[in-house]
Amino acid sequence: MPAITTSTSELLSRFDSLRRTLAAYSHATGVLQYDGDTVAPRGSAALRGQTLAVLSGVTYELQTGSDTTELLRELRSRSDELDPITLRDVSEMLRRIERLSRIPADEYVAYNRLVNEAGAVWRDAKERSDFALFRPYLEKIFETNIRFNRYIAPDTPVYDTALDEYERGLTTEKCDAFFAALRERIVPLMSRVSAYLAASKPEPFTSRRFPVWKQRLLSGRLMDILRLDRDHCIIGETEHPFTSGFTRSDVRITTHYHENSVLSSMFSVIHEGGHALYELGIGEEYDGTGLAGGISMSIHESQSRFYENIIGRSRAFAGLIVPVLREIFPEEAADVDAESFYRAVCRAEPSLIRIEADELTYCLHIMVRYELERGVMEGRFEVGDLPRLWNEKMGEYLGVTVPDDAHGVLQDSHWSGGGIGYFPSYALGSAYGAQMLEVMRKTVDVDAAVASGDLLPVNEWLREHVWRHGCMYDPGDLLERCCGAPFDPSCFTRYLERKYGDLCTNL
Amino acid sequence: MPAITTSTSELLSRFDSLRRTLAAYSHATGVLQYDGDTVAPRGSAALRGQTLAVLSGVTYELQTGSDTTELLRELRSRSDELDPITLRDVSEMLRRIERLSRIPADEYVAYNRLVNEAGAVWRDAKERSDFALFRPYLEKIFETNIRFNRYIAPDTPVYDTALDEYERGLTTEKCDAFFAALRERIVPLMSRVSAYLAASKPEPFTSRRFPVWKQRLLSGRLMDILRLDRDHCIIGETEHPFTSGFTRSDVRITTHYHENSVLSSMFSVIHEGGHALYELGIGEEYDGTGLAGGISMSIHESQSRFYENIIGRSRAFAGLIVPVLREIFPEEAADVDAESFYRAVCRAEPSLIRIEADELTYCLHIMVRYELERGVMEGRFEVGDLPRLWNEKMGEYLGVTVPDDAHGVLQDSHWSGGGIGYFPSYALGSAYGAQMLEVMRKTVDVDAAVASGDLLPVNEWLREHVWRHGCMYDPGDLLERCCGAPFDPSCFTRYLERKYGDLCTNL
Repeated sequence: MPAITTSTSELLSRFDSLRRTLAAYSHATGVLQYDGDTVAPRGSAALRGQTLAVLSGVTYELQTGSDTTELLRELRSRSDELDPITLRDVSEMLRRIERLSRIPADEYVAYNRLVNEAGAVWRDAKERSDFALFRPYLEKIFETNIRFNRYIAPDTPVYDTALDEYERGLTTEKCDAFFAALRERIVPLMSRVSAYLAASKPEPFTSRRFPVWKQRLLSGRLMDILRLDRDHCIIGETEHPFTSGFTRSDVRITTHYHENSVLSSMFSVIHEGGHALYELGIGEEYDGTGLAGGISMSIHESQSRFYENIIGRSRAFAGLIVPVLREIFPEEAADVDAESFYRAVCRAEPSLIRIEADELTYCLHIMVRYELERGVMEGRFEVGDLPRLWNEKMGEYLGVTVPDDAHGVLQDSHWSGGGIGYFPSYALGSAYGAQMLEVMRKTVDVDAAVASGDLLPVNEWLREHVWRHGCMYDPGDLLERCCGAPFDPSCFTRYLERKYGDLCTNL
Repeated sequence: MPAITTSTSELLSRFDSLRRTLAAYSHATGVLQYDGDTVAPRGSAALRGQTLAVLSGVTYELQTGSDTTELLRELRSRSDELDPITLRDVSEMLRRIERLSRIPADEYVAYNRLVNEAGAVWRDAKERSDFALFRPYLEKIFETNIRFNRYIAPDTPVYDTALDEYERGLTTEKCDAFFAALRERIVPLMSRVSAYLAASKPEPFTSRRFPVWKQRLLSGRLMDILRLDRDHCIIGETEHPFTSGFTRSDVRITTHYHENSVLSSMFSVIHEGGHALYELGIGEEYDGTGLAGGISMSIHESQSRFYENIIGRSRAFAGLIVPVLREIFPEEAADVDAESFYRAVCRAEPSLIRIEADELTYCLHIMVRYELERGVMEGRFEVGDLPRLWNEKMGEYLGVTVPDDAHGVLQDSHWSGGGIGYFPSYALGSAYGAQMLEVMRKTVDVDAAVASGDLLPVNEWLREHVWRHGCMYDPGDLLERCCGAPFDPSCFTRYLERKYGDLCTNL
């Protein structure tokens, strides 16, 4: 317990030791999970569950112990003696711990057990398309989230607290304005695109067989084009692609190879590559601190979607990558030219599954989830009504008919893991990226950089304005520093209108 | 601190919690190391080093804290209230901790740092074949081992304590007798084999190119032939093959593929497969205890070498595997028949490098290391004289001329990691395996099982007599229970004489 007479340097040394211990547990946990997702034997899940439970228990105790809270409070009270990075680090850790401490330990442990079990039940339910199986777990998850969010912020609407958990400062008010703007502009755009689609056919190469071993070579080439530092970034294979960033010295992306869908692994590598660039680009001044990671999901998605959609689905990139494709796949890609590739990767049409959705309709999938989870959190919807409401909204926004819950309300894992308030980050990320692009274009000739095959100017702009800052600024502040203006959803709708307008016009 | 009045069940519950925490740290450490050896980015070593240091510090404190020692002592004093497994588990943990506690914490930390640094220096020194670079580190490592072994057992010769560390109950006296028996029988056998070799040529297929992707298929087939449970055992790729067994639910083996040496990966898979079978076969009654692993290096090597040499380098196995080889490699193995395969994999000739040595000469490589490390530990040799002494003994026992230290005293990593007293386990393992074979043959037709492709009877015998016992018995006791007699080196020399006598006769 830090007495008032303890010197600040002594307190800082204790803080440093705490930070190092927490970082070690977090790294070990991350590697165990990565190992579990990639190579570990199928039958090792129970063992890994036990180990992760012990590590998370130790971490919880270390964080919520009175020694830790008092140390952090004392340090924060001496803010004038701390450098800005240390002050931010102390404040962020204290904020996290104070929120965590408001949840009774036994309820926290029970909730972790619940979401752990719920994950297995959800997989089962999705496989059988049986929502009733999952429903009791989902009810408990929503109930617990409502209760926890009341503990954390008794005077705030619970769904606002949920949003704030994933995107500091985000509220239902801001989300409503954002989604209204999207709806207003995207829905009419979709009608034009539908007419265009009716008159065009999918490019034949998109469903051709591309041998997996050659797709692996292509992944390596894509990582090189993105300028991912291979000494600090590896690629693995998993059912669902993801990125794990432990520190800027150890980042892993994964992909999934489907022989008859070369675009799937290709764009997942570019997407995860964007996440990885962010993690790899964090300033070295944050090494060893708790600030050495991406600040939020939406800023992370802004980077991954920037590379996937703004760079990867551009005419300039098509011109760059098609010769590479034809080199690696001389037979399979013999008839692919840049324009047909570009049209193939920009093809937009209403669909059932979020993770397969195109750039144009993606946000509508998010809107459905936003409205449903918000309704349950606010007590307006019952969990039992979610399948019906899901299908209605998918019909309303996307014009599709959901055949079963596996292709509907059961498709995503997020809710089963307790991730309520998380989905809006995806849509925000896309919009942030478009706003960054507008500003970037003032000083960087993005198309010329991509066409030349040297992404350095693009990377350096993002490094300077986004990556290097780690968790130093809240996401809204970071975006404003980066763009010189607050968040403006119209950048995104303008971007989509220009891109898809052009595609339809030049039919 | 357990008061005398605390109930035994309360103490056992504390013990169980301690055990689970230690198991979690050990599992996390193991996965971090496996990840580092297989897939982690090259540039992540420093981060991993920090994480491992924190975990090992926490483990050390947890083990050597007075709470733990008192708990274990109190439990051992109530031995009549404990079941045999718990008693053994408590006693083994207490023994390990008491040994560890005799080493001052600061010296222990400094030594861990030393061997960590020494590993990098050794790699560098080996690459440049520069013993002088490594010498100061090796001197400190030997000095520290001498000092630590004096702390642990002040009244025992230090090298005996070192041997006991890796093989409970092993002494220089036993080693001397064992190696004398080997020398007496192997050296004359080698002369006969040399004459035979002079009259024969290597099989041409052994240095032919076998595509790596097909070798990977072969590894899978070998794992199936060994009946390795693929739900709990995976295969990875590393520079040097090894096995990591976390529990019977999670075991990993690795191999290395060389295009022009198909036998290298093949026999490393069989060797590591033997280690893995042992770990996978531990009785479920030891789940969650500290006894759920192999008891010692030599028992482990007895299993790996049993599969590699006794099974894998037998005529029956050649008959079984050659059709598989010809199926996977229809061109590369077109001219391979069972007898030529058998002769190729049994080819024995004096060589420079231990890990490439054949079954017959392998133990002579160990003898050299045994005599040298013992001499330094006993103060009879200087570290600075090791290169010269190494080269002399290699000439004496194997008749080879060592061209440089990279192919001599610097070839193995063991000493750089502090593994002094470890080498004899390898030779003992081979001999244990031969003794097990003699007993097994009384009830199992080993050759018929191998020839039929169904190793079940062999596996079941070893499971019953070796694997399932985990760490319940000391290695010498386990061998005696298994074989109905104490260790008898003559089984091994008889085995070699029969095998190589036959090979030479049937030229």
